[in-house]
Amino acid sequence: MADWQEITGGVTAPRGYKAAGITAGLKPSGLPDLALIISDVEAIAAGVFTTSHVKAACVDYCRQCLQNKQSAVAILCNAGQANAATGIQGVRDADESAELLAKELNISPELILLASTGVIGQRIKMDAMRSGIPKLVAALSETGSDAAAGAIITTDLVTKSIALETIISDRPVRIGGIAKGSGMIHPNMATMLAFVTCDAAVSPHLWQQMLSRAADKSFNSITVDGDTSTNDSLIALANGQSRTPAITEMGAEAEKLEAMLTAVCQHLAKAIARDGEGATCLIEVQVTGTHDDLAARQIAKTIAGSSLVKSAIFGRDPNWGRIAAAAGRAGVPFEQDNLQVKLGNFLLLENGQPLQFDRAAASAYLKQAAADYSSNIKTQRLDNPVIIAVNVGNGHGVGKAWGCDLSYDYVKINAEYTT
Amino acid sequence: MADWQEITGGVTAPRGYKAAGITAGLKPSGLPDLALIISDVEAIAAGVFTTSHVKAACVDYCRQCLQNKQSAVAILCNAGQANAATGIQGVRDADESAELLAKELNISPELILLASTGVIGQRIKMDAMRSGIPKLVAALSETGSDAAAGAIITTDLVTKSIALETIISDRPVRIGGIAKGSGMIHPNMATMLAFVTCDAAVSPHLWQQMLSRAADKSFNSITVDGDTSTNDSLIALANGQSRTPAITEMGAEAEKLEAMLTAVCQHLAKAIARDGEGATCLIEVQVTGTHDDLAARQIAKTIAGSSLVKSAIFGRDPNWGRIAAAAGRAGVPFEQDNLQVKLGNFLLLENGQPLQFDRAAASAYLKQAAADYSSNIKTQRLDNPVIIAVNVGNGHGVGKAWGCDLSYDYVKINAEYTT
Repeated sequence: MADWQEITGGVTAPRGYKAAGITAGLKPSGLPDLALIISDVEAIAAGVFTTSHVKAACVDYCRQCLQNKQSAVAILCNAGQANAATGIQGVRDADESAELLAKELNISPELILLASTGVIGQRIKMDAMRSGIPKLVAALSETGSDAAAGAIITTDLVTKSIALETIISDRPVRIGGIAKGSGMIHPNMATMLAFVTCDAAVSPHLWQQMLSRAADKSFNSITVDGDTSTNDSLIALANGQSRTPAITEMGAEAEKLEAMLTAVCQHLAKAIARDGEGATCLIEVQVTGTHDDLAARQIAKTIAGSSLVKSAIFGRDPNWGRIAAAAGRAGVPFEQDNLQVKLGNFLLLENGQPLQFDRAAASAYLKQAAADYSSNIKTQRLDNPVIIAVNVGNGHGVGKAWGCDLSYDYVKINAEYTT
Repeated sequence: MADWQEITGGVTAPRGYKAAGITAGLKPSGLPDLALIISDVEAIAAGVFTTSHVKAACVDYCRQCLQNKQSAVAILCNAGQANAATGIQGVRDADESAELLAKELNISPELILLASTGVIGQRIKMDAMRSGIPKLVAALSETGSDAAAGAIITTDLVTKSIALETIISDRPVRIGGIAKGSGMIHPNMATMLAFVTCDAAVSPHLWQQMLSRAADKSFNSITVDGDTSTNDSLIALANGQSRTPAITEMGAEAEKLEAMLTAVCQHLAKAIARDGEGATCLIEVQVTGTHDDLAARQIAKTIAGSSLVKSAIFGRDPNWGRIAAAAGRAGVPFEQDNLQVKLGNFLLLENGQPLQFDRAAASAYLKQAAADYSSNIKTQRLDNPVIIAVNVGNGHGVGKAWGCDLSYDYVKINAEYTT
């Protein structure tokens, strides 16, 4: 039983935050394309960014900011242009965006963090940015989370948002988050962005540690196509406006906060996997029996990322062989005679050998998950994923990963954006 | 200019080898399904096998053989059943197959190496194996390479075969090879098998080293879908029947032999990539400018394996952004301002920034490669691949990788094998 409850409000659910999302004219489509999240007071800030060596100006900018100062007031995000592979001019555009917003908010530019998503190789449309920033600040609201969530998406089918609340030191503490996932903007790639707000008081170092661990169990455990973007960013603020005592070291309260942070990140990550390009279902892979959790996650991610497994799920084929093979190549040693594979409630493989099972019923299980997905595709519901459960031995390690199936539409979306 | 010439004869081109391929009744289709390669004399043997922890009985069998004794006389390969995930009975079936053939050839079973490809979870049809072995031995011939090549394929569109000849110590030395690639057998996976014969005299340790290095530059540098099989095996024999002096350490002659071995492996590897499931073209990725060759190969493999790059090529889209992004996430540090990307003769990106280029002509280049591929699909021709050339700096490292595009047919082949 989780130690928290879901509440409404997204990133403005925690106290002391406002958000806004407007149409500034950055996207050719005319859809909302500029988002802002601000904290009323200077907040502790932590971030996890793309590991790619080809990265957007905003990624270098944020890394530098957080290296100098582990706090921030605002997160500014534009959609439409990724501002990656844009050289020194891209760096100047990022700097100017931060300066413009800082002036408007009357704060130091170093308290502003930046994110971009959109076409790689294109600079931010600075005219639209310049005229958009005052309007964006004017639109800030304590109920602005949905507007911000809508302005960061690209071709995502749905916005992604969550807020949870727990009790720490007898007072409510809240964490909210919004994200965007694997939408494709011609001529480029899926970018994962997530922004998290929290009203607990927590030390900068601990907050960064918590965020990094939460990212490993969530955003780093999802896969749509294995392609890491130039712009992937996860930024989390903690502003202390819950008026709870400062959490400065691990202990019961820190664990509670980290568990809730992890739950927020996992929700957003699953929402991204569920909305993967061409997906017809969400897949959750659960691995047990490894030496440690890291090894279990590694196997889970390999299975969730296997093109053969993903195609089989799209074909509604209870194909234990591909699952076993993906587990075997994950780089984690195990005795194949210990391998067990379950699909939903169907035990397909035990002691490393295939069992007789009701193949039609197992296929129907996959079809049902896809049917449920299809009827909920325009909602944020994450229930009824396809569950693949794999045990590899007697160890205590557990890990999960999430992905989606590989459909004709994935190829269509990614091939037919031809000039 | 290569130091060798192509000759006919496949694995029976080198002196002292015979081969056969017959229909033993292992495949339900009634197509040839049992292959044998033998050396007239005991040959030095080396092998490279799947790194998966879920592996077929034949893989464990061969590893054990080669650990005990670095020589062999025969390679027996069945198609139809992978004999993976078949437990202790699978091990017994492998042992019995070797014993039956040993009896027929009147040699020790430990001189026989085994390979299987086909449905995972299915034991070898031992009745067919028992009745097939005498017929197989009776069919052995010095011109039997094509028959053997035809009996190891599954749903490969073409057989894969090569033989090269060079001069060492004033005498001709030959290396031949056959392979099978990413054919799909319901309900399972692509398996890569390659068998290489050589008539040079070479020490066992050196031969294994040469083969491991050649495998890294060939079979370990191709990717169809990133899924490693339970049965992947590369086995190479060297029987000394060229009557050239024994090569026991690296030097000019060893280098010549290794270069030719690498060329044989690269030909077979490219043939496998070219025949990838649903492929409409062969892609060669050339990377330069890294600190060392390993790093270059790592970047090349990441680009060749990127689903986004593969879909773009299928869409005939000169999408430099996806190529740059894949290079960036390969785990090899480089300055993005040094990045250069070429597609065929089209320079798309320089100094980390996109250039103006003739997009229609670049797309036409991709279309032409696909048209050439299509008109040669039933041949073994490997010419006119799509060339992606990436430079990341001033280092001397170079590396190549090969793959194919990601098409609707890949998904179709892998999804629609539904029960």
